[in-house]
Amino acid sequence: MKNGLKHYLDLIKPVDKGVLETVQKRLDSLTKPQGSLGRLEEVVKHLAMVQRTAQPCFKNKVIFTLVADHGVVEEGVSAYPQSVTAQMVLNFVRGGAGINVLARHAGCEVVVVDMGVSSNLGFSGFINRKIACGTKNFTLGPAMSLDQAERSIVTGIELTLERDFDLLGTGDMGIGNTTASSAIAAVLTGVDAALLTDRGTGIDDITLKRKVEVIRKAIAINKPDPSDPLDVLSKVGGFEIGGIAGLIIGAALKNRVAVVDGFISTAGALIASKLSEYVKDYFILSHLSAEKGHRELVAYLGKKPLFDLGMRLGEGTGAALAMEVIDAALSLYYEMATFDEAGVDRELPNE
Amino acid sequence: MKNGLKHYLDLIKPVDKGVLETVQKRLDSLTKPQGSLGRLEEVVKHLAMVQRTAQPCFKNKVIFTLVADHGVVEEGVSAYPQSVTAQMVLNFVRGGAGINVLARHAGCEVVVVDMGVSSNLGFSGFINRKIACGTKNFTLGPAMSLDQAERSIVTGIELTLERDFDLLGTGDMGIGNTTASSAIAAVLTGVDAALLTDRGTGIDDITLKRKVEVIRKAIAINKPDPSDPLDVLSKVGGFEIGGIAGLIIGAALKNRVAVVDGFISTAGALIASKLSEYVKDYFILSHLSAEKGHRELVAYLGKKPLFDLGMRLGEGTGAALAMEVIDAALSLYYEMATFDEAGVDRELPNE
Repeated sequence: MKNGLKHYLDLIKPVDKGVLETVQKRLDSLTKPQGSLGRLEEVVKHLAMVQRTAQPCFKNKVIFTLVADHGVVEEGVSAYPQSVTAQMVLNFVRGGAGINVLARHAGCEVVVVDMGVSSNLGFSGFINRKIACGTKNFTLGPAMSLDQAERSIVTGIELTLERDFDLLGTGDMGIGNTTASSAIAAVLTGVDAALLTDRGTGIDDITLKRKVEVIRKAIAINKPDPSDPLDVLSKVGGFEIGGIAGLIIGAALKNRVAVVDGFISTAGALIASKLSEYVKDYFILSHLSAEKGHRELVAYLGKKPLFDLGMRLGEGTGAALAMEVIDAALSLYYEMATFDEAGVDRELPNE
Repeated sequence: MKNGLKHYLDLIKPVDKGVLETVQKRLDSLTKPQGSLGRLEEVVKHLAMVQRTAQPCFKNKVIFTLVADHGVVEEGVSAYPQSVTAQMVLNFVRGGAGINVLARHAGCEVVVVDMGVSSNLGFSGFINRKIACGTKNFTLGPAMSLDQAERSIVTGIELTLERDFDLLGTGDMGIGNTTASSAIAAVLTGVDAALLTDRGTGIDDITLKRKVEVIRKAIAINKPDPSDPLDVLSKVGGFEIGGIAGLIIGAALKNRVAVVDGFISTAGALIASKLSEYVKDYFILSHLSAEKGHRELVAYLGKKPLFDLGMRLGEGTGAALAMEVIDAALSLYYEMATFDEAGVDRELPNE
């Protein structure tokens, strides 16, 4: 590996389970039956282990929405034209997209990053980290070079190093990126492409059939090596997906939880998890996407998303909503009265 | 029926599906693939149908936490002493309980109501609607009189008539009230008591076995009539459960969505649904409780809770968290840019 990726990966430590006893004691002192806040208690413990403290912080939240184009759209795999990618960046910058509304709602900043939009954008309000003007059509050869694949991941890591945050959310935009995500998932999990491919922005039956064939063809032509996540990213991936893998690795490096959005972000999380054995303990899956392949990816990772609201918008919208749940969990941890403070009787001894 | 309950029930209309076309048109004009916000879009449509307008309001939120004691605790069915019920009312009034934290987080008022705490409370900050000082031990005879059962429901309805709100959440507190809720559920659904009974505040195996036997004994001795929800409430119910049924009916009367909390609140929702055929279209189940009987109740009602975070605290905590999801859904509806406003291209025609 070049570009310093190996250096970053070597710095990731296991999370700190040593703080759990103190956190559990505080949780059990609060005026509620033990464990009755369910996964909200798990979230508190997760943040504590990742931040290596029984007093985790959670107020400074940022969502990175990474944007790139995909050469494979030439094959007719999306319901929308490629022009929508750049148009949506303008929508993000103006504050009118779903992610803007939900991030405002969650008290969370949105950072928009051009990782590889096919055109040069004639406005400001986003970070330019363009690796190239879109990937190549991966039914004809690799989507990008190995060097570009590494650079996309390192770019994601560097984005996290450039700012402070308590919680990081991942987000994506890029017409064609469910096709790349399904291809990555098929190679890395070994699950059949048909089970991992769905309607994305809303394609019809004929286009869905073509999308599966396109993914099969891409894998047959490029022969990505399932044991080498960088090879897979370069052959059938996307710049924003590599960037998301980098964001997740970067959050781990900074002892922070990454809140992973839906299908595309989870493809990035899968790459990150294959690059470092410790990364998986750092991130939270926010929601189960309606994109059917997400269920397979989630099962493969052995993690349970916080909620399932049938969303499939991407952009970081699931992560933004999950931020509110996480904020609520930590608020309970810090603000609830203890049994002693409230003068509430404890459990009866077992009879 | 006395106490005006029948009068109220007769006033409930079906929800207005006539507004759906306008709402769907707005949802489909927003810069996102059609339907990609999943259940958030369903929530918007639900509020619109209930409020009979394509411009539903959602900012003024209130959660009623109804509190009462249960004579059946004499049988040793809870992990906590009965004294905790009154102590928790003080905790609510002081703002230190889970519901206080989550309601503040959701921008939601909490109204605490004494529906039947066993002692007279020596402090202020709650509404006193005490029907009696706790129910009677229902293994020995009815928990309450038929008149008290009706009065508890009408009290819930009147609480909703006394104030303005856009969204109402239900909540409960009362040592012993999972026992009453399981008993109500067993009678009204016909499901075996063992499948509907769980650990409540955290009882051990021996106590759980006793709890199931207590419920079976209560049903055998009182012979509640499954076709008569008032008879069931009076024989094996509780004052706060009747009150919650009333809150849900009252919200429907006022064309407002009731956000139903967990297991105890759903027992109230079941009674309300048996009293009026239209009520079921008005309320939302906030979350799936970890109390196992909730899954059966939810299936019986044929409704899907918004989320499942393994919570089992009651008080209205699940409803409070759901308020944030609902608020987010309506914010998207009102704040997202349309395709025309944002200059984003629409879907490609099918090829």
